Amino acid sequence: MNNVCEVVELSGHIIDSHILPNVLDKIILMGGDFEIEKLEVGKTNEDISYAKLIVKGKDHKHLDGILREIQQMGAIVSTKDAKTEKALDDCVLPDNFYGTTNLPTYVKIDGVWKEVEDIEMDCVIVIENRDGEKVPVCKRMGLVKKGDDVVVGYGGIRVIPLERTREKDIFGFMQSEVSPEKPLDYYSKTIAKEMKKIKEKGGNIVWVVGTAIAHTRAHKILEELVREGYVDALFCGNGFATMDIEYALFKTTLGMDDECNVVKGGYKSHLVAINEMWKVGGIKKAVEKGILTKGVLYECVKNNIPYVIGGSLRDDGPLPDTIRDVIVAQDEMRRYAKKADMCVILATMLHGIATGNILPARVKTVCIDMNPYVVTRLQDRGTHQALGIVSDPCAFLHLLKKDLDNLS
Amino acid sequence: MNNVCEVVELSGHIIDSHILPNVLDKIILMGGDFEIEKLEVGKTNEDISYAKLIVKGKDHKHLDGILREIQQMGAIVSTKDAKTEKALDDCVLPDNFYGTTNLPTYVKIDGVWKEVEDIEMDCVIVIENRDGEKVPVCKRMGLVKKGDDVVVGYGGIRVIPLERTREKDIFGFMQSEVSPEKPLDYYSKTIAKEMKKIKEKGGNIVWVVGTAIAHTRAHKILEELVREGYVDALFCGNGFATMDIEYALFKTTLGMDDECNVVKGGYKSHLVAINEMWKVGGIKKAVEKGILTKGVLYECVKNNIPYVIGGSLRDDGPLPDTIRDVIVAQDEMRRYAKKADMCVILATMLHGIATGNILPARVKTVCIDMNPYVVTRLQDRGTHQALGIVSDPCAFLHLLKKDLDNLS
Amino acid sequence: MNNVCEVVELSGHIIDSHILPNVLDKIILMGGDFEIEKLEVGKTNEDISYAKLIVKGKDHKHLDGILREIQQMGAIVSTKDAKTEKALDDCVLPDNFYGTTNLPTYVKIDGVWKEVEDIEMDCVIVIENRDGEKVPVCKRMGLVKKGDDVVVGYGGIRVIPLERTREKDIFGFMQSEVSPEKPLDYYSKTIAKEMKKIKEKGGNIVWVVGTAIAHTRAHKILEELVREGYVDALFCGNGFATMDIEYALFKTTLGMDDECNVVKGGYKSHLVAINEMWKVGGIKKAVEKGILTKGVLYECVKNNIPYVIGGSLRDDGPLPDTIRDVIVAQDEMRRYAKKADMCVILATMLHGIATGNILPARVKTVCIDMNPYVVTRLQDRGTHQALGIVSDPCAFLHLLKKDLDNLS
Amino acid sequence: MNNVCEVVELSGHIIDSHILPNVLDKIILMGGDFEIEKLEVGKTNEDISYAKLIVKGKDHKHLDGILREIQQMGAIVSTKDAKTEKALDDCVLPDNFYGTTNLPTYVKIDGVWKEVEDIEMDCVIVIENRDGEKVPVCKRMGLVKKGDDVVVGYGGIRVIPLERTREKDIFGFMQSEVSPEKPLDYYSKTIAKEMKKIKEKGGNIVWVVGTAIAHTRAHKILEELVREGYVDALFCGNGFATMDIEYALFKTTLGMDDECNVVKGGYKSHLVAINEMWKVGGIKKAVEKGILTKGVLYECVKNNIPYVIGGSLRDDGPLPDTIRDVIVAQDEMRRYAKKADMCVILATMLHGIATGNILPARVKTVCIDMNPYVVTRLQDRGTHQALGIVSDPCAFLHLLKKDLDNLS
Repeated sequence: MNNVCEVVELSGHIIDSHILPNVLDKIILMGGDFEIEKLEVGKTNEDISYAKLIVKGKDHKHLDGILREIQQMGAIVSTKDAKTEKALDDCVLPDNFYGTTNLPTYVKIDGVWKEVEDIEMDCVIVIENRDGEKVPVCKRMGLVKKGDDVVVGYGGIRVIPLERTREKDIFGFMQSEVSPEKPLDYYSKTIAKEMKKIKEKGGNIVWVVGTAIAHTRAHKILEELVREGYVDALFCGNGFATMDIEYALFKTTLGMDDECNVVKGGYKSHLVAINEMWKVGGIKKAVEKGILTKGVLYECVKNNIPYVIGGSLRDDGPLPDTIRDVIVAQDEMRRYAKKADMCVILATMLHGIATGNILPARVKTVCIDMNPYVVTRLQDRGTHQALGIVSDPCAFLHLLKKDLDNLS
Repeated sequence: MNNVCEVVELSGHIIDSHILPNVLDKIILMGGDFEIEKLEVGKTNEDISYAKLIVKGKDHKHLDGILREIQQMGAIVSTKDAKTEKALDDCVLPDNFYGTTNLPTYVKIDGVWKEVEDIEMDCVIVIENRDGEKVPVCKRMGLVKKGDDVVVGYGGIRVIPLERTREKDIFGFMQSEVSPEKPLDYYSKTIAKEMKKIKEKGGNIVWVVGTAIAHTRAHKILEELVREGYVDALFCGNGFATMDIEYALFKTTLGMDDECNVVKGGYKSHLVAINEMWKVGGIKKAVEKGILTKGVLYECVKNNIPYVIGGSLRDDGPLPDTIRDVIVAQDEMRRYAKKADMCVILATMLHGIATGNILPARVKTVCIDMNPYVVTRLQDRGTHQALGIVSDPCAFLHLLKKDLDNLS
Repeated sequence: MNNVCEVVELSGHIIDSHILPNVLDKIILMGGDFEIEKLEVGKTNEDISYAKLIVKGKDHKHLDGILREIQQMGAIVSTKDAKTEKALDDCVLPDNFYGTTNLPTYVKIDGVWKEVEDIEMDCVIVIENRDGEKVPVCKRMGLVKKGDDVVVGYGGIRVIPLERTREKDIFGFMQSEVSPEKPLDYYSKTIAKEMKKIKEKGGNIVWVVGTAIAHTRAHKILEELVREGYVDALFCGNGFATMDIEYALFKTTLGMDDECNVVKGGYKSHLVAINEMWKVGGIKKAVEKGILTKGVLYECVKNNIPYVIGGSLRDDGPLPDTIRDVIVAQDEMRRYAKKADMCVILATMLHGIATGNILPARVKTVCIDMNPYVVTRLQDRGTHQALGIVSDPCAFLHLLKKDLDNLS
Repeated sequence: MNNVCEVVELSGHIIDSHILPNVLDKIILMGGDFEIEKLEVGKTNEDISYAKLIVKGKDHKHLDGILREIQQMGAIVSTKDAKTEKALDDCVLPDNFYGTTNLPTYVKIDGVWKEVEDIEMDCVIVIENRDGEKVPVCKRMGLVKKGDDVVVGYGGIRVIPLERTREKDIFGFMQSEVSPEKPLDYYSKTIAKEMKKIKEKGGNIVWVVGTAIAHTRAHKILEELVREGYVDALFCGNGFATMDIEYALFKTTLGMDDECNVVKGGYKSHLVAINEMWKVGGIKKAVEKGILTKGVLYECVKNNIPYVIGGSLRDDGPLPDTIRDVIVAQDEMRRYAKKADMCVILATMLHGIATGNILPARVKTVCIDMNPYVVTRLQDRGTHQALGIVSDPCAFLHLLKKDLDNLS
């Protein structure tokens, strides 16, 4: 049955980080077979292990499929140079293109392993020529130009799986259990400490927020966090941005005041807030002209914090600042996502998943949502360093702010 | 088509409290018809209105069905004495028994309207003879004894619908909208004020809590609230009670410590905590003997606050204090439910709905849960004065405590 | 306290359709007061009623707010001509612009009530001059041009509230109860009958579908429905469209085959499917060239059924056919939404809500989703004729298809 | 730091079934350390592997905690005889009692490994003396009697972890991914085949159902399944049982007929159905007397299928047949759970989790629920052979029935 085979190698903490068992699982699940030719196991917790496997498939196509999968899990299938093919047209990839993970990835070029720049999942690798030097760069398929050298196959590519850290880490690898039944205090304290540490090292924290943050007035806490330097970039939608502005202008969100009275023509206030921005030409102008004098976006403008307002099909208006082209918005988000050390996603499925898609695996990601689906989804799609908390993100922000204040 | 008819009357704020339109709706929905014979509308917001309707049905059985329904919505169908029939056996009701709502209800006995004692929904009314006086009492069907006089039909019964209060009230009649998108601060402040007001008047607050309260360590806040007098009765299950004890004994819940480490044999700690209570014979004994020295139940024992630990099919152990017979547990809960002025339901579907079932309509009920289904379900089943908040009850308790502290 | 007042009128089935009580509620909730000057109640179920109210507010601004609200509920505030102001710039509305509902709306122009064309909620009314005739047209704010005559205030505008139909109707007004606990068979049969009826009258059915429809293979049923003429327009996202294509090309979705095996490089198959469409220049070309030979989109192309693939921030690729500008996509959806008689929303929050936003109130809307939030949200935001079913839309499609087959 | 140590052994498919990595993980997570003394890896997929580890802890108590945990994962800590201590009183366990898993477990008694009878999680092992033979039996703590020999510690106990089967199996070990996005057809077909196979071998299928099954009329399918022999025991609550009876008597559930009309006094019909059963003394009597002539429970009585109606705090009535004592109900459920080969849980959290608690790990368990929490919870708490499907169980039953019919 298994007539073709290939030798692959694995090294690192491949047993306790589940890399080897996962590779064996995958081979079996895909209908292949294996033989373990060599297995040197590090005796202690610190030592690294090494495995050499013979992977067997039914035919070349089948084996190819298996190798492609386990290569992405850290197996080194071939140590020859990676192969490339030219893109036949803009946006058109060669048939056998290599699709990336968000893990650190190396490509062998002229005998040398080089790290892929701006790694992100579900993209391709283009070998750029920079002053004679060949540099592997990760690009989304829409940015590939005719004639680009696109990496194909799976040979000469090395993916570095995340290993479980030796110390305890709430941003642990494979934090699969998503449950509302955890000590909230501990989580908020640990996140607060991590934020403080990142900021002390000059790191970047990206925040992604949904409308509930404004509706519940938790955006007032976010305002303070911008002022205090905990926000290095803000991603939101037209809904949150408009509510933040509506609140700054009229003390309501969708016409509802702080005491749940619907005072200003209900939903119409939303449209009025948008209209005010169109009158002056956008948020920055509104701040300059003294029309917008508070709120999260005001603080961003005042503190030179970049924000990306990504459009969605549900949008009213939208604001002049909302980026209507979703791919343009994504690319704008990418600019800040690649610099992030931490990402906090609060009460948003659409923008949260969109951000999760473009983050490198190393970014410590906290997702707080009442909907366990959002939290699970983010972890499933490769957001490895994710801490998912099923709680009310608005109530949680109160705890987090208190813990941040206690630290300083 | 509509060959039989009956005259019914309605009075009160029947238009703006939606009573009249609801009655008309119901008649149409059930395939009947109506004619409005008289409608005197109060001119202003303070005046009451009066309506006289002719309700039409296809036949007597059909009309009966309609009258039975609208009678429960406040329509007075007949002002003659209510009729009774004798229960033929214990637990066996006469065929045509009247099923109660949880609204204030009057029965006409010997020409006099008398209020039904201990009103509760889905029960029956028994006319008791107390020293010659006939008293209408609400009883669950299992408590009806052979020979009891059980009210039948719908005549001579008057239900007083809740009317929308003139002032703003978050415990509003028909707060149908259950949404996570409301100002949290306002809710916690308003509930805190209401609690303070109730306690100042000597009222009673019943708390119903689920296991998440212990898992998230929010039970520490509840401990303080017991000490501070905000808890007049506590309803919980074997799970919460055991975790509260496990935490008091070992600083873990299900073996998980405050920093999310599973330290003490995981789930086994739960069983150990139960075993400790069996060794001494229960919670009160454990407090007396100095074995249990903190926790919510400890505070209840120390402060003479009654608690009911209602059993469920999922229970391990259970604790010696857990009431294994669900109806006995219900009846024990009834003792405190009938005295309640406010009821706070946190993170529990089973115990929350069980409590909602036995509360009189007048009790101000706050249900805080991340699952909107729980919140909606409580409101649907006749918990009229309900404020449903879709939030993390554990995080919310932090806000509520802060607001209670700010009031004093 | 209530120093200013205004007379307003209401007529129709204002009591049993809850219009009058809702108006009185709103006045009280907003801190106003009222006096009922006249109330003529239709005696029977068929007769219409009439009310004349004096509405009181604290000052002109306060009263204005109240009148604006109750005007949208059907109250006629003033029967003078509607007022207009000129838009000062493109996309910039006059301050006091009238924000629309999705209910049929009339504007009084030169003494004549004229119906607003293409009514949709949260838009504005522009008076267009067509060969000398003044025509009120509903426009989203982004389409307003400098100099347009935009209706302002609330006078001279008449909103026709939906009244509860006399017969039973599952697309009932105020079907507030969203619950998984309803007879599924009955729902699928009734929807099937309604669809048949609409198609027999030459009406239009718009379908809005999410990725789960493809993942669960329920899209095969949708294919048949397109062939059988039950689909007049299809709205979906890049995810569904790509999976439909991936399945047509490779018999997998996200690399998962019909027996849950992940066979083709997992998520990469998604990218490959997109790449195939880029190679040929889009879906229609792929059908022409015989590359795409089945699937929902194939059937749409073959049967000349329009589809709109609206982009979102989460998109990979996207397909050449995906409309990246969300507002352009919205406008494309509007073209078909305005002709719809029925709209079926399956397993999609983003596209479902986006569609709900642009539908006129008269469209019979069925939303089937496992997440009650989606269902409730659609009903809350003014989708009046909505039937929300909390079920698995994929399993439900099987039932619906069987019932449609049984009808023919 | 790690001053005490112990040698433990593991064997089987310990790498690809993740047993070894999980053991190493656990040691690290609990603050211990390890050294791999020996690791013989089976070269091929069929060969078994063997590992010998030195486990290190800070002190004896710490090491004990670690050993206790990894013993439950399959590590053999000591091959001496298991130790026992006497229970000091009824329901009172010795301090160091061994808490069971639901995996096959062996205890070494007088040098011989003996399998524990009736294994179930979170219970204890008592060594019974049967005619001189010592037999290890699993008992819930409430059944332990004074003087019983209870197994303590972790030595001399061997737990057999479930290994991933070599062939594909939807009841797979660690089917962690719970998602609505799977091919429904494939699932229903595979479950149908499995049911058929189990019945052909004379196996047992236990069904656990919630009220939604009756509300949606899917109980009619269940009736047929009882008649066709696919149901060997039925677990439900008072709610489902009463609705099943109400439907048989009046064609309504909670007063709602098949076309969603509320015809019979709404919720009161529920009470009337209960009353009818009290009149005759229970379900079996009602069948005998010809009062109950159809429905799921009727079919159970007619076909001699046992049912357990487990009470809950929410119950009205309850029925004479409802077991009010939750532990008595549990024990009654245990009688059938231990004989089960398959268990199907539909639309019930309470009864589903209660059943999951008492099933041995070998039982193939299918849980279908719209709430992913229920599905995940069942899998988390040790229901290893679980297939969780996030779908509408009522709609799913239609598919399953069709697939069962197609098989015969």
